[in-house]
Amino acid sequence: MTRPRGVVVVTGSELVRGERSDLNGPFLAGELLRLGIEPARILIVGDDAAELEEALREGLRADLCLVSGGLGPTHDDRTVELLARAAGRELVVDPELEGEIERVSRGFAERLRRPYADFETGVRKQATLPDGALVIGVAGTAPGLVLETDGAVAVVLPGPPSELQRLWEPALASAPVQAVVARARVPERRVLRFYGAGESTVARALAEAGGEGDGVSATICARDFEIHVDLFAEPEARERVDWLAEELAERLEPHLFARDERRVEELVLDLCRKRELTLATAESCTGGLVAARLTSVAGSSDVFRGAVVAYANDVKAGELGVPEELLERHGAVSAEVAAAMAAGARERLGADVALAVTGVAGPGGGTPEKPVGLVYLHAEGLEGARPAELTLPGDRAAVRARATVAGLHLLRRLLSQFRHQSP
Amino acid sequence: MTRPRGVVVVTGSELVRGERSDLNGPFLAGELLRLGIEPARILIVGDDAAELEEALREGLRADLCLVSGGLGPTHDDRTVELLARAAGRELVVDPELEGEIERVSRGFAERLRRPYADFETGVRKQATLPDGALVIGVAGTAPGLVLETDGAVAVVLPGPPSELQRLWEPALASAPVQAVVARARVPERRVLRFYGAGESTVARALAEAGGEGDGVSATICARDFEIHVDLFAEPEARERVDWLAEELAERLEPHLFARDERRVEELVLDLCRKRELTLATAESCTGGLVAARLTSVAGSSDVFRGAVVAYANDVKAGELGVPEELLERHGAVSAEVAAAMAAGARERLGADVALAVTGVAGPGGGTPEKPVGLVYLHAEGLEGARPAELTLPGDRAAVRARATVAGLHLLRRLLSQFRHQSP
Repeated sequence: MTRPRGVVVVTGSELVRGERSDLNGPFLAGELLRLGIEPARILIVGDDAAELEEALREGLRADLCLVSGGLGPTHDDRTVELLARAAGRELVVDPELEGEIERVSRGFAERLRRPYADFETGVRKQATLPDGALVIGVAGTAPGLVLETDGAVAVVLPGPPSELQRLWEPALASAPVQAVVARARVPERRVLRFYGAGESTVARALAEAGGEGDGVSATICARDFEIHVDLFAEPEARERVDWLAEELAERLEPHLFARDERRVEELVLDLCRKRELTLATAESCTGGLVAARLTSVAGSSDVFRGAVVAYANDVKAGELGVPEELLERHGAVSAEVAAAMAAGARERLGADVALAVTGVAGPGGGTPEKPVGLVYLHAEGLEGARPAELTLPGDRAAVRARATVAGLHLLRRLLSQFRHQSP
Repeated sequence: MTRPRGVVVVTGSELVRGERSDLNGPFLAGELLRLGIEPARILIVGDDAAELEEALREGLRADLCLVSGGLGPTHDDRTVELLARAAGRELVVDPELEGEIERVSRGFAERLRRPYADFETGVRKQATLPDGALVIGVAGTAPGLVLETDGAVAVVLPGPPSELQRLWEPALASAPVQAVVARARVPERRVLRFYGAGESTVARALAEAGGEGDGVSATICARDFEIHVDLFAEPEARERVDWLAEELAERLEPHLFARDERRVEELVLDLCRKRELTLATAESCTGGLVAARLTSVAGSSDVFRGAVVAYANDVKAGELGVPEELLERHGAVSAEVAAAMAAGARERLGADVALAVTGVAGPGGGTPEKPVGLVYLHAEGLEGARPAELTLPGDRAAVRARATVAGLHLLRRLLSQFRHQSP
């Protein structure tokens, strides 16, 4: 039995003009993979009718065709009309749907103080569907659809990612999509997250442990300066994939930091929470990025107290109590100042644990002794401290992003260090 | 004369598995548009040979086919081999290229302390090219290529975005690509950036001003809570596009903030720099995101002094001098506390201008009086202040991102307000 084949068609002229990076393709492809359907390709086209129709025809040659975008009320939103043509179906008005879209549009008209007549053509257009299409819900005035054709099932979803993800749920639950899913076999999945090992080191470890094949496939992906390994296995290969995951975990033990999808900032906050510790940061070159990552987690306020972004030297002195003499003798970018910043953050912000970051993010400000990319980190807690000196490659954005991730992992290591020693 | 048609083929199994959002497609599509070549579609495929070959065949039916990825030394990097097959070319070893890749690989082998023999197969593979291909440069050990086929030109570039962008330059300069470019006509481009107007308002203004057509096309794109309008015009339509840009600027004057591509944080820093003002932020719910945006700009340190991220209430009191009594009476999320935070940031961080942000980012912490999404901003300078109360939709990340952008635009407005009044 071969895996059902899935194709994602994304339409939007801003996407094909390079103005925006598409998020729906990766989301839908990930869903296909999770369901055991082969994500064969993602096709991004603009609103040119010929290009879009050709893409939809291509999509209908797969078992499942997931389409995003082009459902709006205007003439250049052509997905539904072209899908009907590609599938050889008549277009018919769905009266019930028309009533629903009319209600929403009358609300819009009222709020915008415009006559409803302005909306009427759009309402009729959005209620016109390929014969036999199943309406799975409405996003604003745009209906999501499921259409069974000869040999394929097409799912049409609105372009805004949050709407698309909301309507994907009823689409997935619909009978035609479930019939495709039933022909697939949901793979087993094992997740391993590494930090501090290169992609090639992880690839070699995987190969030496036996590698892909025999029902197991792997993705090794450098993301956010971490290495994310996902192992997928046919149901029969469960033992082999478990064994492979253990082998990898063992071979790369010093670098393994998670066996689930929690981000490092979540791990740091969880480690603090478990031990009832509070947290703060003192940041120079990262300019608040570490604090922003930590506070991106819902509920971080019970652990995170705050941060001082000390860009100017006298802010380092005034707000973090870094001695002027230290700044003069060692310079703002130094291990000594990083340590003083961390101590200052703990004291001034009343936190048990603090991370300090100071460095040269570039492009200016580098010297032969302190080049662009030189970053000092210092994590300090109740039971000790961990300093780190890094020389990071890349431009300003890369140095800042990398220093942020390195800082979060340094905090994680500091907090894990004593974990097994406490009674 | 019709525009030459361009297709982008992106290969990478992690992309088709939804693990990473592709950046190369948008970059290359944007380049096509800039050159006057129609960016017809972006095709993303994995490393399955049949899928990739079919995608390359499709690409070769366009005038220009830009290919990203699949150039590595291992057996699942198949782009070159499959391009040769799709183009009907023999594969031949390029001895000069082989020498160059060998040199690089011997360096790797030494650094990794592995025998060069481990690399030999890979070197031979990477030096094997379709007959007639032009080598335009090497990224690591991966060569970039230009190949002329019957009716099409294919450009093959490495997958890592920085390498791809570096090798795109010599590819663009190569004779075969220049021959395609010569058949295109580089469009005129006008840029308008709006804040505070909806996408549909901008679309209506454009339509009322005469709209697209007669040699002018437009993209209206909501990005980062701003509306970005790009007008493209055939060389003959220069007058019409200038007129259209003026019309749009006039109709939406209160919302227009830029006629170039500078981001709002750059505008804020430039406004400060011109008037020799220093800047600071005091952030609660945005957790450092405003500071991070401001410091993302190279050279921001001559304007930006620092920030206090005051997550805990006693940090607001201790580090920003917000009176306890104010916090008790009005609550941390209030116009009064926002104003006190801004004043505190100016005083404590020694800045002329400050922005304060306090709000309920959610998902928890909302009450009937102060629901999730309620955000108070306060921008204060030497000559006055601008407060703002917002109710923002969306999840935690959306509320934080939107509050950040709103804060930056509030600073821009405050700083622009007095611009025309100074002598």
